[in-house]
This record gives sequence, structure tokens and C-alpha cells, in this order.
Amino acid sequence: MRTIGLDDIDDLALGATLLGTGGGGDAHIAKLMVRQAIVDHGPIRIMEPAELPPDGLVVTAAVIGAPTVILEKIPSGREFINSAKATAQYLGKDPVAIMPIEVGGMNTLIPLAIAGELGLPVIDADSMRRAFPQIEMTVFTLHGIKATPMSVADEKGNLCIFESTTNQVAEDLARGAVIRLGMANAISCYPMTVDQVHRYGIQGSMSYCTDLGKHLAAVQRGEAGAYDRFLEFAGARKLFTGKLVDLDRRTTSGFARGTVVLEDLKDPHRHARIEIQNEYLIAYVDDVPLVSAPDLISLLDHETARPILTESLRYGQRLDLIGMPCAPEWHQPGMLDIVGPRAFGYDIEYTPFRGGQA
Amino acid sequence: MRTIGLDDIDDLALGATLLGTGGGGDAHIAKLMVRQAIVDHGPIRIMEPAELPPDGLVVTAAVIGAPTVILEKIPSGREFINSAKATAQYLGKDPVAIMPIEVGGMNTLIPLAIAGELGLPVIDADSMRRAFPQIEMTVFTLHGIKATPMSVADEKGNLCIFESTTNQVAEDLARGAVIRLGMANAISCYPMTVDQVHRYGIQGSMSYCTDLGKHLAAVQRGEAGAYDRFLEFAGARKLFTGKLVDLDRRTTSGFARGTVVLEDLKDPHRHARIEIQNEYLIAYVDDVPLVSAPDLISLLDHETARPILTESLRYGQRLDLIGMPCAPEWHQPGMLDIVGPRAFGYDIEYTPFRGGQA
Repeated sequence: MRTIGLDDIDDLALGATLLGTGGGGDAHIAKLMVRQAIVDHGPIRIMEPAELPPDGLVVTAAVIGAPTVILEKIPSGREFINSAKATAQYLGKDPVAIMPIEVGGMNTLIPLAIAGELGLPVIDADSMRRAFPQIEMTVFTLHGIKATPMSVADEKGNLCIFESTTNQVAEDLARGAVIRLGMANAISCYPMTVDQVHRYGIQGSMSYCTDLGKHLAAVQRGEAGAYDRFLEFAGARKLFTGKLVDLDRRTTSGFARGTVVLEDLKDPHRHARIEIQNEYLIAYVDDVPLVSAPDLISLLDHETARPILTESLRYGQRLDLIGMPCAPEWHQPGMLDIVGPRAFGYDIEYTPFRGGQA
Repeated sequence: MRTIGLDDIDDLALGATLLGTGGGGDAHIAKLMVRQAIVDHGPIRIMEPAELPPDGLVVTAAVIGAPTVILEKIPSGREFINSAKATAQYLGKDPVAIMPIEVGGMNTLIPLAIAGELGLPVIDADSMRRAFPQIEMTVFTLHGIKATPMSVADEKGNLCIFESTTNQVAEDLARGAVIRLGMANAISCYPMTVDQVHRYGIQGSMSYCTDLGKHLAAVQRGEAGAYDRFLEFAGARKLFTGKLVDLDRRTTSGFARGTVVLEDLKDPHRHARIEIQNEYLIAYVDDVPLVSAPDLISLLDHETARPILTESLRYGQRLDLIGMPCAPEWHQPGMLDIVGPRAFGYDIEYTPFRGGQA
């Protein structure tokens, strides 16, 4: 067991923003929630599955919606408690831990705040170790674990509980509710036992995220050799440095979609293009796809190494395009069907991304 | 207490089709469901609220969706049982009776089949004594009774349970689910006590519907004076007889919408126009609105007196346009806000419809 205290939040949030791959919401609001929870209830326990009873119930807590809306609609906090409690009550059990469904973006941090409020530990695992835009896009789906019963709640007291035949239907139902409840809501899905988390989850995600954040923070402080150490830790590679010259954004069907084009700082004939669906999903350099989901794409400010969210993209920004391999737990049969490029409608072959020098 | 046996189904279904005011689905399928339930479980008990324990739980059972889809997507029956049971289980109580939420269309009959299967009586009341296209359009809303907790189920095993802050939000949430679950599903909303049904419901709806059906059946058999007796029983009036010369239909946002135009059989310069939103909502004769929701509009085949559903409208049909006053329980403060013409987007004044000779 370790704990997350006030001093750990910044590193964790920075790692989470990077793993958000441009999406996952603004960690700033979630940071404030965690800070308040720690002030009110003390440091939050992060526990390994082996430290918890195997048949204990684990429930998740997350925000669901379009990042463009999540950015503007501040959560009250009660909706997350209501949603997590509703899932547990529906199952008639008390949870022993809270799990982040995605360690990436603000959904890394919200579970900490909820765990603090409920007096529960956070289990050191997740289902993505990045952010993904749809509920069925988890390693749990690959193992046949259901996303339901799940609950969706808003800040006004509206609550939905769903049982679905498939995780794709779960996504459809949740999205339908979210569209009608203001496009930024609380969700608690994939309730499962500690043993299931242990066997099928991505292990150590919270610790990994914190360490990743520490490495990136060193880069931001300008420490010598820090960029290389950061890339090495993440198995990542810098693929392109360019100026943002084109940006097309639209919020449709409950998602923030878009396309961003970078022009090489030195050679105006060289371009990188990144496709967005809440997160950065595919990165092309000179029309060659170099990274695609489930591997991770990040855009860092060229000067400050600050990860830039899709909502914060602006014309003229100078950005480093970074590729990172996904968590190894993703490489299971069925992966490409749910999180490969074709699952998002991009007709390209998936090639596992490898770091190191190009 | 009375019972509904095999011999009563036709009259009840005919009355229900008339009260469906063109919508509410095809009673034929629901008739088959009731017939089977009676064959399997015997006649179904219809009970007054006074015959049941005042604090007993009453749950409703209904189909929700677009009539155009309900017509083609045959229910399995299980979805209604699942939905009614889910609402009761969520409340942690066993129901003492099933209530039709609308006595109008197939939702008059489905509760009988469900009651038969569950071994429960049907309470002789409802919330509309006609069909309406939206969940909040009930006399219960006028009395501040919540539509939730409510459940929506499909035939595959998908299930949604909703708690909402208002009945309008309940409608939004259910509609969102229905759009994603095939546009024809089971719903169990407005769970309440027998006492609440007694105090706030429309009383005797099932009996009224059966009697109305008996009167119309007499018209259909061509009995002397039967048409006048039918009109008198319902407080109704024949407003127009014409040939269907124009029909515009579209299924949008989960509803079947449309406009139908009749041309007077004798005078081609005289027209009636009826606006549809699942049901016939407003009837104009020569551009003067003569009947509007919540009062009832029916189109009867001019030769056979068969009520014609909106889905069965065809060019060239000769139709009688009938106006009928709504149940007196509707005339409460707030009625026009939820079921008056403006609630449906038609900018006309509501004038209570009165039967008798024009």
C-alpha cells in the first residue's frame, strides 16, 4: 500500500494528462476535487489487488461526456458518489475499493476524490492506462467482463441504471443518457471483484501514471537529460516537431471530433496530421500512419513540454508529437476489434508502436 | 371486481383502438397476448382501488416507441414482465396490481396479459383514458406524482432503470433509451400506491373502454340507432366526412409525425386537416381548429366504422372525423401546459370540446 497526499497530486495529474492523449478532460478541476478530499479525509490509500479480499466488490467512478463540455460544466461531486453508490446498491454489496476505469485524463483523479469521500482505498489498476472515448474499449471487454450493471448520474439528482447484453449496448445506452443529461455526467461501470481486477485489469496503472508524471515534470523543469529519460521510461519516441497550421473541430453524436495538422518547423513541405475522437487516435507523418490506437499519441508544447489537450489546440502552437506504446495487457485476441484503427473508422493497418530512436 | 375473459377482449380492444386516437399501436398483437394469458391463466380480474390495500404497490406495464415500429416489431412478452418486475424490485416491494398507464391503444391490453402472467389483478384506472405520446402527459403529473423510478426493457435482456427530477426528464431519458433499443420497448413507470391511484388516477377507465367498445361494435354491426347511441355515450360528435386526399408522414426524434387532409365527399372546397404526433392531436375543419388535445379525435372508416390508425391511413379512404371530450379528471390546473395544443407545438387556443349536435 502507498498513499497519495497533497504533494503527489501534481505528478499524478501530469502523468494523467499525458496518458489522456489529448482527451479525458481537464485535470485541473479533478485536481481541485482530490485536493479537497485529501484536506477533508487525509491521504488516499492506493492498494494492490493482493492487499484486498479477492471476492470484495470494486466499483469505478468516472466522468462521461464530451471533453469540450466537461471543460465548461464543473461537476458538483455528488453525482460521482451517487453513481458509485447506485451501482453498489443495485448489486446489494458494499464496495471494498474504487477503481479508475481509465488512468488517463481527469478520470485518473476523480476516483481518488470519491475514494477519499467514501473512506475507501483506490485499487492500483485500470482498464486502459490511457483514455478512450467509449465504454466498451477496455481490456475487460477482451475478457468477457460486462460493463453493467452500470449507473449514470447527473448533478441534479437524475440517475440511470443499466443492464446490457453487450458492452457495446452499454456504451449506446450510456451515451443516450449523457446526451440527454447535459453531456458531462458521472458513470460507474464494470463493477467486479478484486480477483477479476487482479486477473484481467491493467496492473499498477496509478503508480505508473505517477512515475510518468515525475519524469515529465523533470523535463518541464529543464533538467539535463530528462527528455531522454522520460522517453525511455515510457518506451516513447518524438516523431515530429511542427507548428499547428490547420485545425478542424466538431462535436457530434456525443463526441468531440477533429483533425489537426502540423507543419515542420524547418521544412514547410513536411506535415503531421492527427485525427481526434475525444483523444488523439492516429498520427500520420507525411501521410504515413506512424502511431494508431491503442498506442498513445501526445502533443507536447515544444518549449514547455506541457501536454496539450485537444480543446487547447490553437493555430500557431509549436508542438512535439510523441508516440508511446500502450500497456502490454492490451495485446490480447480481439484488441483490434475494439480499439484498433478500424474500430474508430480509420481504414489503416495497426502496427505496434516501438520507442527508441527512429 | 369483474373479470375479462376471452369473450370480452374484442369489445375492450375496439374501445382501446378508438381511445388510441389513431396511435397507441396495433391492438391486434396485444389481443393475441391477452388471449394467450387468459388461456394459460384464466380470466383476468379487474379491481376497483377500494378493493385493494391502500398502501399496496401498483406498477404499470406498457409499450413505448414509435407506432410505425411497434407495428412491425412483435414483442416477446418477456420485456414487459422484466420491466414491471425491475421497477418493483428496485422499490423492494411486491406489487398488488398492474395498472395500464394509458387506456388507449395496445397499452390498454398489454397490462392484462402481464397481470395474467403475474397472477395479479388489473386496477380499473389509468392516467390518460386515451393515448398520448409522452410519459409526462398524465393526470399524475398534474398532481406532482413522479414517473420514476421507471424501467425500460427490450426483448434481448437490456434493462434501464431511471430516477429523474421531473417527469419531462423521465420522458427524455426513456426516449433516449428507446431510440437505442430498437424504437419499441417495454416500460414500467409511475409506480404508486393504490391510494394514490384512487385519489389521482382516472377512475373506471377499463370499464369505460369496454363499454365504449360495445357501443362501437353495435355501430359496426349496423344496428339501428347505434351510431347515435355511441356518440351519446362518448359525448362525441361527427365533425366531417371526407376522402383522404393528402398524407405526409415522417418518423423523427422517436415519434411518428404527420398531417392528413380530408376533402368533403360532396363539396371539394371543404377540407379537414388532422395533425399527428403518434396520435391525432388537432383537427381543423376549413382551417378552424374544432378539436385539440387533450380532447379526442378519431377517424372511422365511413362504411365500416372501423377506427383507422395513423399507420393505416391511405389515399382515397373515406373517413368520418369524430371529436370526443377527454376524461373529466384532465380538467385540473396545469393541464394545458402538458397536454394542451401548445404543449405539442401548435399555437392555437384550447376550447373544451362538447358533443351533441353542432
